[in-house]
Amino acid sequence: MVNDLVLLDYWASPYAVRVKIALQEKGITNYECREEDLLNAKSSLLFEMNPVYNRIPVLIHNGKPVCESLLIVEYIDEIWKETSPSLLPVDPYDRARARFWADFADKTFITHVRKLWRQKDEIKEDEKKEFIKWVKMLEEELGEKPYFGGNNFGYLDIALIPNYSWFYSYQTSTKLNVAADCPKFIAWVKRCMDRDSVKKSLPNEVKIYQYVLQLKERFTT
Amino acid sequence: MVNDLVLLDYWASPYAVRVKIALQEKGITNYECREEDLLNAKSSLLFEMNPVYNRIPVLIHNGKPVCESLLIVEYIDEIWKETSPSLLPVDPYDRARARFWADFADKTFITHVRKLWRQKDEIKEDEKKEFIKWVKMLEEELGEKPYFGGNNFGYLDIALIPNYSWFYSYQTSTKLNVAADCPKFIAWVKRCMDRDSVKKSLPNEVKIYQYVLQLKERFTT
Repeated sequence: MVNDLVLLDYWASPYAVRVKIALQEKGITNYECREEDLLNAKSSLLFEMNPVYNRIPVLIHNGKPVCESLLIVEYIDEIWKETSPSLLPVDPYDRARARFWADFADKTFITHVRKLWRQKDEIKEDEKKEFIKWVKMLEEELGEKPYFGGNNFGYLDIALIPNYSWFYSYQTSTKLNVAADCPKFIAWVKRCMDRDSVKKSLPNEVKIYQYVLQLKERFTT
Repeated sequence: MVNDLVLLDYWASPYAVRVKIALQEKGITNYECREEDLLNAKSSLLFEMNPVYNRIPVLIHNGKPVCESLLIVEYIDEIWKETSPSLLPVDPYDRARARFWADFADKTFITHVRKLWRQKDEIKEDEKKEFIKWVKMLEEELGEKPYFGGNNFGYLDIALIPNYSWFYSYQTSTKLNVAADCPKFIAWVKRCMDRDSVKKSLPNEVKIYQYVLQLKERFTT
């Protein structure tokens, strides 16, 4: 089977990073990455491939679009089923649980970081506490396991680790020190960062911070 | 394997109805349904079983909770894998597509119906148009197939059909006639309603309308 793969991408998007990590974990490096200009003009291809949301990432596989990052990761896992490792856990209960936490992170992380650029004022103490509480919930789900996927880096790890690129911005803006409150979570981050797939896919955190400042300028003045 | 099944339920919830239909489709009728009193006092069991969202439905399978209706439907499909029919399509692309539209419906349907009780004023013309546009998008995805699952009633059908219980309330409040604008969608509804699993699981639409009026009283006065 020929695999013609195009990823509609945006360098700063943690959602697109998920797809890049998943492909890399499956050993797929031969694909085209098309950068979208989200802030100015989206391509007509993006409108055509994701007519419902007009947003990235979209993975176009042999001409057919798959949208929504978590669904793309599942799709990659299912298409390259024989290529180890399997990203989703094998046990149905573990699968449901991984999907639950990935979906939870999807729904909630953005509400924390969006404050960095949508809010004119500085982030308040109770908002910082909410953010730490968020990390702690995930830390509790991690427990004593090396990865959210257990002994193997998997679907939930892929769903969560791209968010870490934004921690530097959050910490710089708020003077928070997540490592002090959530050392096990940060130890997990380090384990992930040792992986080639993660190292190669995550955008530079300082560049993200500069981008956050640009967004703040754009949205609050 | 012993299957001890408890569903934390709420009679009017289209999310809980998904679980009931999925169980019925797999031939599972021997489970306990515990009605939650969502408007007044949720049970301590609900808080314990879904500490993140405290919401129904939760399927407790041999003591372990599975939360979020679409994830529960996937879980049921995976646990009773050998029990035909399979609810998710077999092809990875079709699976991604079914998940996409189920997720889309999840994110958007509530914004339309919530207006029935959260909004003091009547639903405006442009809001009604948006609702019809919503149904038309789904109708287009259905195309000429008998079911969203193709020739078989499946995951996306289960995700969507429970919303139909609320159409009567929407139509009664707005004088809309969805059948006139979206006849193929309504023909699909009828095909679904012929199924035992759907017939037995959907709440009475007139009772739902009375409930909507109660909610409106509660939220807008």
